[in-house]
Amino acid sequence: MTQYLILFDYIGVVLFAATGALTASRRQLDIMGFIFLANLTGIGGGSVRDVVLNQPVFWVDQPLYLAICIATAVFVYGTAHFLESRYKVLLWLDACALALFAVFGAHKGFLLTGSPIVAILTGAMTATLGGILRDVLAGEPNAVTREEIYVSAAVAGAAVYVGLRLMDVQVLLAAFAGGFVAFGLRAGALALGWTLPRYHPRPGRPPDSP
Amino acid sequence: MTQYLILFDYIGVVLFAATGALTASRRQLDIMGFIFLANLTGIGGGSVRDVVLNQPVFWVDQPLYLAICIATAVFVYGTAHFLESRYKVLLWLDACALALFAVFGAHKGFLLTGSPIVAILTGAMTATLGGILRDVLAGEPNAVTREEIYVSAAVAGAAVYVGLRLMDVQVLLAAFAGGFVAFGLRAGALALGWTLPRYHPRPGRPPDSP
Amino acid sequence: MTQYLILFDYIGVVLFAATGALTASRRQLDIMGFIFLANLTGIGGGSVRDVVLNQPVFWVDQPLYLAICIATAVFVYGTAHFLESRYKVLLWLDACALALFAVFGAHKGFLLTGSPIVAILTGAMTATLGGILRDVLAGEPNAVTREEIYVSAAVAGAAVYVGLRLMDVQVLLAAFAGGFVAFGLRAGALALGWTLPRYHPRPGRPPDSP
Repeated sequence: MTQYLILFDYIGVVLFAATGALTASRRQLDIMGFIFLANLTGIGGGSVRDVVLNQPVFWVDQPLYLAICIATAVFVYGTAHFLESRYKVLLWLDACALALFAVFGAHKGFLLTGSPIVAILTGAMTATLGGILRDVLAGEPNAVTREEIYVSAAVAGAAVYVGLRLMDVQVLLAAFAGGFVAFGLRAGALALGWTLPRYHPRPGRPPDSP
Repeated sequence: MTQYLILFDYIGVVLFAATGALTASRRQLDIMGFIFLANLTGIGGGSVRDVVLNQPVFWVDQPLYLAICIATAVFVYGTAHFLESRYKVLLWLDACALALFAVFGAHKGFLLTGSPIVAILTGAMTATLGGILRDVLAGEPNAVTREEIYVSAAVAGAAVYVGLRLMDVQVLLAAFAGGFVAFGLRAGALALGWTLPRYHPRPGRPPDSP
Repeated sequence: MTQYLILFDYIGVVLFAATGALTASRRQLDIMGFIFLANLTGIGGGSVRDVVLNQPVFWVDQPLYLAICIATAVFVYGTAHFLESRYKVLLWLDACALALFAVFGAHKGFLLTGSPIVAILTGAMTATLGGILRDVLAGEPNAVTREEIYVSAAVAGAAVYVGLRLMDVQVLLAAFAGGFVAFGLRAGALALGWTLPRYHPRPGRPPDSP
């Protein structure tokens, strides 16, 4: 059973790589910019996860992941102009990839440490850091400061997966449930504007007038 | 004796986590934004330190650190509006945490490598990278480009600790001396505007007119 | 033969450290800002490479690298005002360092993994991440979103090195060929304005009007 979960990882890499390439198209970069952002987004979150878990970084042993990111970047370079709204497509692909990576990251963290809280954090890191790196380097507003549910969706999906696994639910079933919750929350944010209540007492004054 | 030093680490994590949460309150993020920035700031610097030293990342074995960051974030979410100036509180908590982490990071680096210069660098990294990551992701001006003494305070504190240890001064005494120097320099910067002489011949021209 | 390649690494560290210090001079930072950016740029890319390859980070065992970065920062602090255009000097030093690191990073990655694609990626990472970190922290436009050939030059140089090594060309010869290609491409970008064709159908609309 467990080995099917690796599909979550591969599909997530393709989708995140596509969001990196779409970001490159929005910034009108050259083909190498597409490939760079596709790789950064596709393998960034998982690389940090593996480093933190003291594991070999996944794509060093399986360079197929890199070839996938490059192929995705080239494909997007050739087809992005057919899309009516690249940004919408980008957001929805990102939502799918976030859900897949939240589950896979939690799965890997849980397998290696047995700690639920560490597993939820590695799930959230895997799911969000690739997109955050993409946005910081491309100069887009990043997920941390955007208003929508983003990190929360990844945390919730990872928590559902880990919670179900603690109750001995089968791996694949727990994975689909966790992925469904993460994607559902993020989809609600995108389509219906779902937000968590924001801290509202008052905004910060500028740093220069303390 | 040495085991008391771990207190520096725990207290530093709480204080840095609080600065992350205060930054989230200034940006009016939701509760998950508070938790995200609290974790990033609280454990970011130490994580890089451990990775660089080829050690297991500290919070993977001791998830209590994560629980502490989350609890701190929730506490700040509920109480930040009582503060008259969150930015001032943020700066002073950051100064204390910087001093504690400069010493603890230097201690860990020195213990593991025996090299004074590596120990000073790991001290400085532990003390400053969490705050720098916080500021980059939250879109605040980061410590590298601010005018005040910041990195210098961490370097000085780490250097004092390592220097005293080389002279066989007791661990706790060296730690308090190092922490005192780091905090004192940073406090001088905050309260009295201490700066190092800046490079002043002339500023850079914009990159687009080389 | 192979041991001469380490010279590429040392010279690259000096040159990248100098670009970090020149960036600090353009931002009119204090001496510690010079040292911080010199270290970040000089050892940043190689640190990520070593972490990703699951190797001890190179400067932890050989703190001489840190001393070199510090000395370079101090030297630039004392001499930058003699330069007529610091930005031009910065760009050309960066081009040399990029070429040296592309080859050395590819060499180290190839030696450790035997995978050509991983070697090209570690070459590109070593060559570009130090400069990207420098630009992100100093608030300069980073290489990913600039129009010129930058990452591409590193990739091409690394690919030439790896390709020649696969054809059993001698290490030093392959290294000079790879470095020549990387520097040549970057020099063409700087002096003659070489670019790759950019994705031009249309730029992205702002994120807030999806």
